[in-house]
Amino acid sequence: MTTITIPGGSLFGLDNLPYGVFATPGTDPRVGVRVGDSVVDLAATLGDAVFARPSLGDFMAQGRARWDEVRRRVAELAAADVPDAAVHPVSSVTMHRPFDVADYVDFYASEHHATNLGRILRPNSEPLLPNWKHLPVGYHGRSSTVVVTGTEIARPCGQRKTDDGPVFGPSQRLDIEAELGFVVGTGSPLGSRVTTAELAEHVFGAVLVNDWSARDIQAWEYQPLGPHLGKSFATSISAWVVPLQALEAARVPGPVQEPEVLPYLQEEQDWGLDIDLAVSWNGEVVSRPVYRDMYWSPAQMLAHLTAGGAAASTGDLYASGTISGPGKHERGAFIEITWGGQEPVEVGGRTRTFLEDGDEVTISATAPGTGGGRIGFGDVTGRILPAKDLPE
Amino acid sequence: MTTITIPGGSLFGLDNLPYGVFATPGTDPRVGVRVGDSVVDLAATLGDAVFARPSLGDFMAQGRARWDEVRRRVAELAAADVPDAAVHPVSSVTMHRPFDVADYVDFYASEHHATNLGRILRPNSEPLLPNWKHLPVGYHGRSSTVVVTGTEIARPCGQRKTDDGPVFGPSQRLDIEAELGFVVGTGSPLGSRVTTAELAEHVFGAVLVNDWSARDIQAWEYQPLGPHLGKSFATSISAWVVPLQALEAARVPGPVQEPEVLPYLQEEQDWGLDIDLAVSWNGEVVSRPVYRDMYWSPAQMLAHLTAGGAAASTGDLYASGTISGPGKHERGAFIEITWGGQEPVEVGGRTRTFLEDGDEVTISATAPGTGGGRIGFGDVTGRILPAKDLPE
Repeated sequence: MTTITIPGGSLFGLDNLPYGVFATPGTDPRVGVRVGDSVVDLAATLGDAVFARPSLGDFMAQGRARWDEVRRRVAELAAADVPDAAVHPVSSVTMHRPFDVADYVDFYASEHHATNLGRILRPNSEPLLPNWKHLPVGYHGRSSTVVVTGTEIARPCGQRKTDDGPVFGPSQRLDIEAELGFVVGTGSPLGSRVTTAELAEHVFGAVLVNDWSARDIQAWEYQPLGPHLGKSFATSISAWVVPLQALEAARVPGPVQEPEVLPYLQEEQDWGLDIDLAVSWNGEVVSRPVYRDMYWSPAQMLAHLTAGGAAASTGDLYASGTISGPGKHERGAFIEITWGGQEPVEVGGRTRTFLEDGDEVTISATAPGTGGGRIGFGDVTGRILPAKDLPE
Repeated sequence: MTTITIPGGSLFGLDNLPYGVFATPGTDPRVGVRVGDSVVDLAATLGDAVFARPSLGDFMAQGRARWDEVRRRVAELAAADVPDAAVHPVSSVTMHRPFDVADYVDFYASEHHATNLGRILRPNSEPLLPNWKHLPVGYHGRSSTVVVTGTEIARPCGQRKTDDGPVFGPSQRLDIEAELGFVVGTGSPLGSRVTTAELAEHVFGAVLVNDWSARDIQAWEYQPLGPHLGKSFATSISAWVVPLQALEAARVPGPVQEPEVLPYLQEEQDWGLDIDLAVSWNGEVVSRPVYRDMYWSPAQMLAHLTAGGAAASTGDLYASGTISGPGKHERGAFIEITWGGQEPVEVGGRTRTFLEDGDEVTISATAPGTGGGRIGFGDVTGRILPAKDLPE
């Protein structure tokens, strides 16, 4: 038996215990929990085949009571002794995408982000459109291109507008969006609604999201039906799903919503989240977005998503949209930090606007834990490769 | 053994042979082929377990050569004798959704539809936006709410704008969209592109689609990120997937594209499709859209969808968008037929604009078959139920 040592100040203490899907050389991917710098093999520890699968899906479908029970058992075991063969150094494992993504919806919940984008893209009109404070604006993204952290991102090709008409080629304005994503564990049937009070019955946990965005492709294509190829080439998520229970100490009141929202969006519980993010560009922190000020809460997003009777399903991922604060270096996208490329920033001693081939972006985040210290999300990182499969 | 009798003039002769997933009382859903008014159980006939599953997915993933081989064998068997136990009258079976929908993309490929919508929704500007003739505009819809024909559709609730601000409640402008949907059999890896010449290697077949649309919800929510709740509550598809091979005789040149499209959208093969649709409202035909004039071809749609490197997957569904011709009664959506509700039509002796509870809509379609007659798509039908789960 092994006693797991948790280093002092670890972001992965017993009040975090995020779930992921890992593999060791020669073995199939299976579910693990991160404890300090170790990964605990849950199938080997708990003897339950639901954890021997290459996705959290079947476990997540078991529901809140079961999530609570497993979390209690894992905390007890991790604090005592775990079989030697069930513990692996996190540096020795390969992480896989933790669940099969069912439907992916991306919201637009930061007032600062929506205002900035409105000013940059539509400089001659009101930055916030009339619907923005009445409903959490969102749209469906492409589930099959949600990839796990570390996956390299080929620069996408697409159409962009030039003075001589549209041309096809590699995006010239490749950007990031730093977001938080919520993972649905138990769904809801077609024709029913999830209320704001029911978030914790349905949402299993949260991941970090980098919603890579090709701004030139997006700007030309997005009217009138929204983003498509500007976003569909890749969305990266962190490998560790932080359970909703681990975020209890991070819950704070959200901002005052004025005008008052319609009854189906009102909420009695606080689902603002005190999460601090950091965005690193080639190892240099260029932004520190805070989640605390997000206008729409995850409970409101899920209530809205299902308000028309849409089913929610195990593995649904819905993301917050870019997290931006009021300051220049609290913005979660380069188009905002550089104000549409007009105000370049210094990175690694060079003047930069959008992503170049070889660039690497890492988003990390921490939050208050229930143990008095802080807990961490797994990083979401990706490196840009040159465009592939180029047109002649 | 049974010899299947195909009634004269049947739309389901040996040149059609569409695939679906059916069940008989007390048995599990499995793959069948429609021949005349019969369903042939493929697992029982061919002895291959891939057809004993409740989805076409695993068979579709086997690829074009296998699809061709199975089609040849089924045509031979259906023309000769089939084991008694493997043949069921189509009236005795229950049809299921034929495949698990991976990603669902809805295009906007009819010039008449896009022009009509532009005139109705943006009366003071050019009806076609500048990008429309340069790329097939499309967006992602909700995969989990794609349902099989016959599924009843609860009227969705959502926000709509009034003079006193937004209110939440049942949609007052519930509409249809008559579309053709293309089903991806074999996918393409992330980071690669499918060319226009490769359509038949990837697309398994086609279905009819009714993309139910709540126009009042959509009008209020859709700026700037596109439709969400106005479309996410339900999308109905026909139960029978017509194989691409069955549409050989329906292939026609598409309309001239001017301005010339970019090279990745040019095509050497004709993928216009000579398909005639009919839209019935409570049993009365109110529109006969023709697919022939669609501006963008299915080969162009798939090439565009993957142009940025997005993976295509088995079970992806991409639909054409509303099919509308130039005439009032060739339009595939009620918002167009009634010009935004301003020009009601007579249905069943009453003046009508949008859908009322209890209404039933059926979309059917036929095309020239390779046998000299015509082939049919399965109908896609749905009846509107009152809104459920109403807010207090």
